[in-house]
Amino acid sequence: MVVDQLKSAIRDIPDFPKPGIVFKDITPVLQNQELCTAIVDEFVNRLKGLEIDAIAGVESRGFLFGMMLANKLDIPFIPIRKQGKLPFKTIAESYKLEYGQATIEIHEDAFTAGSRILIHDDLLATGGTVVAASKLIEKLEGVIVGYAFVISLDFLHSLGRLTRFSDNIIALARYE
Amino acid sequence: MVVDQLKSAIRDIPDFPKPGIVFKDITPVLQNQELCTAIVDEFVNRLKGLEIDAIAGVESRGFLFGMMLANKLDIPFIPIRKQGKLPFKTIAESYKLEYGQATIEIHEDAFTAGSRILIHDDLLATGGTVVAASKLIEKLEGVIVGYAFVISLDFLHSLGRLTRFSDNIIALARYE
Repeated sequence: MVVDQLKSAIRDIPDFPKPGIVFKDITPVLQNQELCTAIVDEFVNRLKGLEIDAIAGVESRGFLFGMMLANKLDIPFIPIRKQGKLPFKTIAESYKLEYGQATIEIHEDAFTAGSRILIHDDLLATGGTVVAASKLIEKLEGVIVGYAFVISLDFLHSLGRLTRFSDNIIALARYE
Repeated sequence: MVVDQLKSAIRDIPDFPKPGIVFKDITPVLQNQELCTAIVDEFVNRLKGLEIDAIAGVESRGFLFGMMLANKLDIPFIPIRKQGKLPFKTIAESYKLEYGQATIEIHEDAFTAGSRILIHDDLLATGGTVVAASKLIEKLEGVIVGYAFVISLDFLHSLGRLTRFSDNIIALARYE
């Protein structure tokens, strides 16, 4: 039900960010906050039984639902950000892009060793960012208890890149 | 009460992003979601009587509380993003930085003309970004009904840059 509503709200933008790519635009979803509440409730529902100490959300769109989910579960929200944005001591992880590379960071004191972390981003595409985020969590000796995505581009076959970290992968709107 | 709690949670980071600047770090605030709920409730409380059609939040940290506030008020959340990030048709506004300039964008169809928009960011510093965001709202013929900030660096005297758009300026943790 919420998945159908979500899929209806997502807008396809052809040729963004470059020719041949169809971008899944969530901005119409953000216009409907009842739907946003239903998305967070659906995450909570599917996460039942999982012990989670904190939500780590990836800048920028991962801040939107990541923060709401952390708030709903009453557990800390941990921002993972692009290089140079976090002000305290950080550790970094780089990953390849089609051309060049990107680096993301997390605060060294984001959580204590052994904490059970759920990683969230709005969209799973090639998985590069999320794999890098997972490595950051493991470097700080966190336990990755799972992943929650609003959208998964299953046709890019990225789920397999995450199962070495955790088998609990939740994705609401899936595109095969 | 919430303001005292908030000020206790904010962490001062000296010499970030450059020597001589003391950065106000909100990541410890995000660790305490009861406090985050209290922040949003305090915004709602101070906004009482104001008719608001949507919240516009500035990337990236403006997504955190902006989305929660929109959800609490059950009105749309409108992302204002850095250049090249929004996938649909956009309008842009540039503003000066100390060295060079930055450009932010909003979707052309973010709201209908005459909509009453509250602008949110986590921090009011020199006001450059928020003034640019305000110009974007006015270009789309929105009515700026006010501003909500978690933190205001009052000693930078930026509030005066906003009053030409709206006198309703809410800032929780103020530093004089």
